[in-house]
Amino acid sequence: MFAKRHFLKKTLLATSILFAMSVNATENVDLMITDATVLTMNDNKTIYEHGTVVIKDNKIIAVGDASISKQYKADKILNVAGDIVMPGLINTHTHVSMTVFRSLADDVPNRLHRYIFPLEKKLVSRNMVRIGANLGNLEMVKGGVTTYSDMYYFEDEVAKTVDKIGMRAILGETVIKFPVADAKNAQEGIQYALKFIEEYKNHPRITPAFAPHAPYTNSTEVLQQITKLAKKLNVPVLIHLAESKRENEKIAARANGKTPVEYMHSIGSLDERLVAAHMINVSASDIELVKKAGTGVAHNMSANIKSAKGVSPALAMYDQGVRIGLGTDGPMSGNTLSTIDEFNQVAKVHKLVNHDRGAMPPIKVIDMATMGAARALHMEDKIGSLEVGKLADVIVIDTKAPNMIPMYNPYSVLVYSANSANVRHSIIAGKLIMEDRKMLTVNEKEIITEAIAFTKKVRQAVIENGEKVI
Amino acid sequence: MFAKRHFLKKTLLATSILFAMSVNATENVDLMITDATVLTMNDNKTIYEHGTVVIKDNKIIAVGDASISKQYKADKILNVAGDIVMPGLINTHTHVSMTVFRSLADDVPNRLHRYIFPLEKKLVSRNMVRIGANLGNLEMVKGGVTTYSDMYYFEDEVAKTVDKIGMRAILGETVIKFPVADAKNAQEGIQYALKFIEEYKNHPRITPAFAPHAPYTNSTEVLQQITKLAKKLNVPVLIHLAESKRENEKIAARANGKTPVEYMHSIGSLDERLVAAHMINVSASDIELVKKAGTGVAHNMSANIKSAKGVSPALAMYDQGVRIGLGTDGPMSGNTLSTIDEFNQVAKVHKLVNHDRGAMPPIKVIDMATMGAARALHMEDKIGSLEVGKLADVIVIDTKAPNMIPMYNPYSVLVYSANSANVRHSIIAGKLIMEDRKMLTVNEKEIITEAIAFTKKVRQAVIENGEKVI
Repeated sequence: MFAKRHFLKKTLLATSILFAMSVNATENVDLMITDATVLTMNDNKTIYEHGTVVIKDNKIIAVGDASISKQYKADKILNVAGDIVMPGLINTHTHVSMTVFRSLADDVPNRLHRYIFPLEKKLVSRNMVRIGANLGNLEMVKGGVTTYSDMYYFEDEVAKTVDKIGMRAILGETVIKFPVADAKNAQEGIQYALKFIEEYKNHPRITPAFAPHAPYTNSTEVLQQITKLAKKLNVPVLIHLAESKRENEKIAARANGKTPVEYMHSIGSLDERLVAAHMINVSASDIELVKKAGTGVAHNMSANIKSAKGVSPALAMYDQGVRIGLGTDGPMSGNTLSTIDEFNQVAKVHKLVNHDRGAMPPIKVIDMATMGAARALHMEDKIGSLEVGKLADVIVIDTKAPNMIPMYNPYSVLVYSANSANVRHSIIAGKLIMEDRKMLTVNEKEIITEAIAFTKKVRQAVIENGEKVI
Repeated sequence: MFAKRHFLKKTLLATSILFAMSVNATENVDLMITDATVLTMNDNKTIYEHGTVVIKDNKIIAVGDASISKQYKADKILNVAGDIVMPGLINTHTHVSMTVFRSLADDVPNRLHRYIFPLEKKLVSRNMVRIGANLGNLEMVKGGVTTYSDMYYFEDEVAKTVDKIGMRAILGETVIKFPVADAKNAQEGIQYALKFIEEYKNHPRITPAFAPHAPYTNSTEVLQQITKLAKKLNVPVLIHLAESKRENEKIAARANGKTPVEYMHSIGSLDERLVAAHMINVSASDIELVKKAGTGVAHNMSANIKSAKGVSPALAMYDQGVRIGLGTDGPMSGNTLSTIDEFNQVAKVHKLVNHDRGAMPPIKVIDMATMGAARALHMEDKIGSLEVGKLADVIVIDTKAPNMIPMYNPYSVLVYSANSANVRHSIIAGKLIMEDRKMLTVNEKEIITEAIAFTKKVRQAVIENGEKVI
């Protein structure tokens, strides 16, 4: 909390200085968005109609009503004529490179062992990871995602794609006890991760991380080793936790009847650097442990119900102050990568399972897609809201498309009506990445052509593995 | 069944004739779609890769592989380079004019009595109905809907908008025992409907209908009167049925413990002209009754879970051969109007409630959006599949957008990845209505401007009614 108060103090100070400057002069800035319906997602959920957002270098230097625009001279002005301007969406959990397998064998029983593992054994490579990440990054930017958290292999290759497109990401290199494409065992995975962390530790937009796959696919010793290394290096740890009933049984057998959350707590690995994906099978006391530990939670509603695993008590976690945000899970699980396409489901399925049409109202969904997700990734001092001093990750949503009209309540429109195609512009770290849906940092056509070409290899591998392309 | 076999026989005959013609000459046609991934949705679920669809006047005259294109000379050719070509989506249940209220007071307790009824009392007029229908029609065409079934007031006004944009629709004039905008009571509603039916009975794309609101808002006598009139005039009857527990209680009290379905059956009103929306609280024997009666069912998953009413046993109904198709419900309930934005939810929520990741696979969802919906509306001989002799209601879906790649299984891509913005072209009754998302029959900007202007009246009316715009 100290850090946050300190941050707010700095924010107030910055605002005062800007106000003082405005009396006599205009300040030169890089980018200004005007005439916007600004959803700040700050603590008070302030909305500015006809509002202004001012960006200099990679930061937000002013947010307010129409009047403040006069204080600045901007190199570029986006007059958005009432469109929604909000913090970029944060996808707290995915496996971006798996886009190359998307739509294959959905709903087939035992798909993981029949399709995915054999395909990964045959095809995971730096090339595949690059092609998949390029496609997924493109989809995410076009769907309003500005930051994501990833778990896969060759994460240094994913990092290159993130760097190029200009996104922000936490990239977790997988540690698992089985042989995988970039490591023979957990220790090799840790070594790979250490090298990756060393390489990217000072990158302005990429945060390298450890990604122990799950408690049941790693030994207690490896999990504890990672916890200690992460503390020493001050990097995040990404994990799948409490995802399936089978996991609960396996951990109970290993740890004297403990739940996965209790087990992680008991070995000292439930801490404020951990981001736990799924958290479906959790008890009230598990939630309490996670809250006290400051562990982040990635809520992947759409993927979790696709696999019929159940609905995480995400609403209870949110209401009890757990650090929780929305994630899509991988493109084989979800199958989309932008949380905006899942807002509708998140709101409605929680109403269904809570038997309450007032449960999970739109403002909570949007909070879990922005500030909640920032808190889940322990980045709330940097991103998640439009406030002075924060990094300038900002998206603009078209409010004049037929599906977005009328707009009596912008949160409702975003949650119940919007889809990823309503995202018009994306700004990350102060840089315009997409303008009127045109990508400015990468060649969209090249990425798509390469991804489509790769599908031939996947089709061939499926057939070589003795399965059908269905 | 006789009608269907007869139809198939004619189809085979037509194909043979075309084949015979092709030997020596090319036939002049209006429109040909080439190099398409054609999902015919015929009984065999035939898919043509690099396929062709040929349209003359308002009908499909040929569907097949690449070779058949040589047999025709078309005024216009759409080479879609692998995009999905499929039957236009059929929205089996909505209240299109209510778009003007969308996003207002979502999730507010008792919204119906606090917001909707007072607003309707003040604002429902020919003008409001026209503005709302224009906006909703636009959204539907842009989301791939080519036919919809509507229940509201001033349906003759809705008919004018449907005629102009070029869509196909069943339009049901509401009959209800309370005073409403266009009738003081049920008898006036019936008279209004009769006049509307007379006016539109020969329209090529508009089917006028009776829409008794629900069993609990109409007397037994009125319901029976409508059943008889509908039989005489051979028009559909649209109704809300088995939507809430309160309805079941009310009908049980009226009809000696009967369920709403049993009650409709007992009064002779459960027949092959009826289309019943929702059908959430139904028993196994209710399903049997509905199947035997040939009654159609509109499954509005997304709206039903938004109001926490529950999940209709739609999968069981589909599997048992009930005439069932997808609907969105009204834009205050859903809140979108294109079923493509709900495919994902339909597939996933049925997996969740059935505890089975294999439940409701994509092909069933697409069937319920096309042929199933056509059967629900008793229009399966005319629309719902791409077959020779059927009306040419055809949509083209972009498969090169990042969210649509890869495409190992087109049904999976449509259900788990697509959104309404992926719809590229729409053809209704052989006429190109939208090309590359540009509307060809209406002025999109005018419709949007008028709809946005009307929101001021709504805001004012909400405040006059003593509520807040939230």
